Amino acid sequence: MSEISEQLRELVRGTDEVLREDDLLEKLSTGRPLRVKAGFDPTAPDLHLGHTVLLNKMRQFQNFGHEVIFLIGDFTAMIGDPSGKSATRPMLTREEINANAVTYEEQVYKVLDFERTRLDFNSRWMSAMHAAELAGLMSKHTVARMLERDDFKKRFEANQPIAIHEFVYPIVQGYDSVVLEADVELGGTDQKFNLLVGRQMQQQSGQPAQVVMTMPLLEGTDGVQKMSKSLGNYIGISDAPEEMFGKLMSISDVLMWRYFELLSFRTLAEISKLKAAVDSGANPRDIKLSLADEIVSRFHGEADAARARQGFIDRHRHGQIPDDLPEQVVTASGSEIGLPQLLREVGLVSSAAEGIRMTQQGAVRIDGERVEDHTVPIQVGGVAHVYQVGKRRFARVRLEMGEKN
Amino acid sequence: MSEISEQLRELVRGTDEVLREDDLLEKLSTGRPLRVKAGFDPTAPDLHLGHTVLLNKMRQFQNFGHEVIFLIGDFTAMIGDPSGKSATRPMLTREEINANAVTYEEQVYKVLDFERTRLDFNSRWMSAMHAAELAGLMSKHTVARMLERDDFKKRFEANQPIAIHEFVYPIVQGYDSVVLEADVELGGTDQKFNLLVGRQMQQQSGQPAQVVMTMPLLEGTDGVQKMSKSLGNYIGISDAPEEMFGKLMSISDVLMWRYFELLSFRTLAEISKLKAAVDSGANPRDIKLSLADEIVSRFHGEADAARARQGFIDRHRHGQIPDDLPEQVVTASGSEIGLPQLLREVGLVSSAAEGIRMTQQGAVRIDGERVEDHTVPIQVGGVAHVYQVGKRRFARVRLEMGEKN
Repeated sequence: MSEISEQLRELVRGTDEVLREDDLLEKLSTGRPLRVKAGFDPTAPDLHLGHTVLLNKMRQFQNFGHEVIFLIGDFTAMIGDPSGKSATRPMLTREEINANAVTYEEQVYKVLDFERTRLDFNSRWMSAMHAAELAGLMSKHTVARMLERDDFKKRFEANQPIAIHEFVYPIVQGYDSVVLEADVELGGTDQKFNLLVGRQMQQQSGQPAQVVMTMPLLEGTDGVQKMSKSLGNYIGISDAPEEMFGKLMSISDVLMWRYFELLSFRTLAEISKLKAAVDSGANPRDIKLSLADEIVSRFHGEADAARARQGFIDRHRHGQIPDDLPEQVVTASGSEIGLPQLLREVGLVSSAAEGIRMTQQGAVRIDGERVEDHTVPIQVGGVAHVYQVGKRRFARVRLEMGEKN
Repeated sequence: MSEISEQLRELVRGTDEVLREDDLLEKLSTGRPLRVKAGFDPTAPDLHLGHTVLLNKMRQFQNFGHEVIFLIGDFTAMIGDPSGKSATRPMLTREEINANAVTYEEQVYKVLDFERTRLDFNSRWMSAMHAAELAGLMSKHTVARMLERDDFKKRFEANQPIAIHEFVYPIVQGYDSVVLEADVELGGTDQKFNLLVGRQMQQQSGQPAQVVMTMPLLEGTDGVQKMSKSLGNYIGISDAPEEMFGKLMSISDVLMWRYFELLSFRTLAEISKLKAAVDSGANPRDIKLSLADEIVSRFHGEADAARARQGFIDRHRHGQIPDDLPEQVVTASGSEIGLPQLLREVGLVSSAAEGIRMTQQGAVRIDGERVEDHTVPIQVGGVAHVYQVGKRRFARVRLEMGEKN
């Protein structure tokens, strides 16, 4: 039993909610491999580390011998946009869905165990379902209950339109759990309502209710807002090794522990030891290096990770760049910006003229590399770089395209 | 054009609402036969004159050369009650639906023109529809708009459950109009919302919108509440000729004109003449006899109607029963009641003993027929009868089973 309770502790790690932990313990105690379901959009994915929080939890289940069902909810794509009595316009073609599935596979098997993953599509059963059967499923749910869902409630109260078919999605998602006889369903915190519908529908069908586990949203590199491509605080799983390594090293020492909890495959026991080491005076920078190492290795392999690590260390030793430089965002109106102008913008020099002079004197470095040509254009976009003037003035700057504010 | 406007006047007669009359005029002006749709429940019908208000309007359209689609909404019956992932319990079997359709036909062709009636079932297209297509139809409608429907609104505000599939019915009904390319849809006033959904869906499909015509609920023989079997104020179309005739003769002189408007096939011009006659001193009783004649003839043929009429006149002449006796309802706890007891109950005698004595003296009549045996049991249920004691004491009494109050 201590093995089961250890397993339970790891599986519950980092979750936002588990409904109910008792049920999970009971299911784990049977010793049989559990069916762990997680649903994904059929639209083209471009995953960042925030998305891998869920994948990591799936992987954890696999590591304990359980089976994961990676379910692509392509029923959504089957819903036409009927403009005539027979004409229907599918939202995604079958080819697009299959191409997206391949894109998923290319990315998720960096995290998931191929052998213990079942890729499935809910169109497999939903395309055969008739209108009457769907209406039958709907008859078991009330409008009032649906409107309790947070986002529906807000929109309803704000008089924003909710199309009726939006009520169908939670029901279909629940029905998927019935068909798959899922033991566990994983999702983001925003999925809680839908996951509970699955629990309810399984019970109505005489099945044991699935355990619902919600995962929190991962904070982005700024440590404040959720990781998001549009907020620019993300680490894409396709980012180049150096970029990924640099971004991981840029997070705060506090955020590092959050990333360990949600992104590292180290056990809770190992992480506790690392914390103890820092408490006893170890440099958090070395711990962060090992986190960056682990994650870059996962997506690029150990050799590339080692190179990225060495590059990072070299650059920072060379220029003695401080480890904990906060990131500044500068908005540029074009696709390029002049170096002296940028240096003035972030306060490393007091005028563009000083910027030109300091560059000509060889006092300016980018990521530790000296730059002597002040006319070199700096590209807007991409990862943050560290700009340095003289020995002690540093700024970590990310350039964004946009209206200058 | 005066022919068209005359047609319009007759078609609009008795309606609660026509949306929009201009559209109807335009459709009539094309000269082509219109497709007039009306939907009916798939559950077993037992029609009374209240139901025929709608059938009469359909018949009027037929008389002007239009085609009527008598649509049985058996999609409802296809909706299972899924208790498992594949088990579905249909609400009505196909055999039951077909049997019900036959029952409808036996009744409605007393009113409708067989040649200009198309009997159809919406399962014809709905059984082939897939879940995704239904969801697609649902995507065009909002929750807020659905909750504007009177009954939904009331239930929602009173926290009474509304199952989500109830939102499907108006959409399916509207889709039926799209499939059938209906020019006109008829229904009760409670159907207005659903009929308007049809208008909207036809427009979304690029079809001309159907004209929506709602018919009022017919008042029962009491002239106050809507005709209803459970209220006991109904005239069933399968009632025996004498019973039907008697019930029709029991309505008030005011209600008679309402019945003329909604139940008679006489033209508005003819009815105006009858009103003028009464205004000039004609006996309303004679006009009512002609109404009863027309309606009993419709359901039982002219010979039976004539017999019923003669029987009615004989009984009333014989006993000089007043024409306008109000109906009294007496609740009995068993299936029978004793005659003296009933006479006392309705105040024709002051005690059961007096009831026995008056019966023995030959002073008691039921529907004009003398009754001399005071032990004869009076059956509870069915139509009202006129009880008479002596020359001047009368009561029209309907006996109902129930808790005595």
